[in-house]
Amino acid sequence: MNPIASSAPASRGPADHNVRDQIVEAAGEHFGHYGYDKTTVSDLAKAIGFSKAYIYKFFDSKQAIGEAICSKTLTAIVVAVEEAVAGATTPTEKFRRMFKTLAATGASLFFNDRKLYDIAAHSAGEGWPSARAHCERIRQILTEVIREGREKGEFERKTPLDETVHAIDLVMQPYVSPLLLQYNLDAVEEGPAQLSNLVLRSLAP
Amino acid sequence: MNPIASSAPASRGPADHNVRDQIVEAAGEHFGHYGYDKTTVSDLAKAIGFSKAYIYKFFDSKQAIGEAICSKTLTAIVVAVEEAVAGATTPTEKFRRMFKTLAATGASLFFNDRKLYDIAAHSAGEGWPSARAHCERIRQILTEVIREGREKGEFERKTPLDETVHAIDLVMQPYVSPLLLQYNLDAVEEGPAQLSNLVLRSLAP
Repeated sequence: MNPIASSAPASRGPADHNVRDQIVEAAGEHFGHYGYDKTTVSDLAKAIGFSKAYIYKFFDSKQAIGEAICSKTLTAIVVAVEEAVAGATTPTEKFRRMFKTLAATGASLFFNDRKLYDIAAHSAGEGWPSARAHCERIRQILTEVIREGREKGEFERKTPLDETVHAIDLVMQPYVSPLLLQYNLDAVEEGPAQLSNLVLRSLAP
Repeated sequence: MNPIASSAPASRGPADHNVRDQIVEAAGEHFGHYGYDKTTVSDLAKAIGFSKAYIYKFFDSKQAIGEAICSKTLTAIVVAVEEAVAGATTPTEKFRRMFKTLAATGASLFFNDRKLYDIAAHSAGEGWPSARAHCERIRQILTEVIREGREKGEFERKTPLDETVHAIDLVMQPYVSPLLLQYNLDAVEEGPAQLSNLVLRSLAP
């Protein structure tokens, strides 16, 4: 059921990992140029100079390669968010930075690495495991920030925690989901700031 | 500057209006079938059985026809919102109904009249005057509701009114803009309700 896990068992050595990385990198270039939808594993094999069978030694399917590209990209966003949150002292500031960083890293991906962005958008649109895991991780970080704010008396405690988290998650979606962000690029600076103010007013004790 | 106004001067009589309506209706069908982008005014003329010159008597351009289709569709949404708001007694309830109706009428358009929905989405993506006027009207209704809530002491008054309205408008966008709504159809029932709760918490005095 999980193509990445099944195609990359833990027992594989460093040499295999290098080949995997090579395939992922070349596939990223190739998908970016010709489009994920229009590329087959055969096209990819021909372009990289590997046999199709050799690629299938490492990845079960085209989607598994796409997943690997996508995971790498989304992990970089999560790392940036974690750093931003760690650098703030109050839950209020943590929330602001989290939202700002999510929008900024997404927009930067769009403008500087459009091909990776498009694969991430495709992944979000199709509900791939990599995209779902990313959303889940963002929700976890958000939950930790809200919980800390409640414990410190900075945020209200009347609303059930999961309701609060879910609603804030919905507010952030247009700037977090690569599928939606591309339509909100005009508001990528100002939007998260204004929405953070609104969300923080809603969190006032 | 305004293709609709310039192609339909007030002096035109009821007969001309009938022809206009006929063109708009036929164009709606035709665009819906073949796609707005792929249809030319020549195709349209051929399909309707009018000469191209005759169509140009009524509309300056293909976009002007698209605008007329779009205006009609968006006006119906505004009417539904106005009725929903008028049927509520408190500003809190007015806001809830406004948001719910916007999402519900948009989703209903998507599911029941996909071709009109697609033209509205195109219009929103291209920033057509009809789409911009629609957003402006929605913002006006929202402003009236917030202002009334402030006057009645139901909503807080510390935040500048335009900042409050703008932020709430951003919260509603994913369910209001036909360009974004198609990606949020899963959340069209629950999203506006949960987001209304969050917005109303942010509006608490």
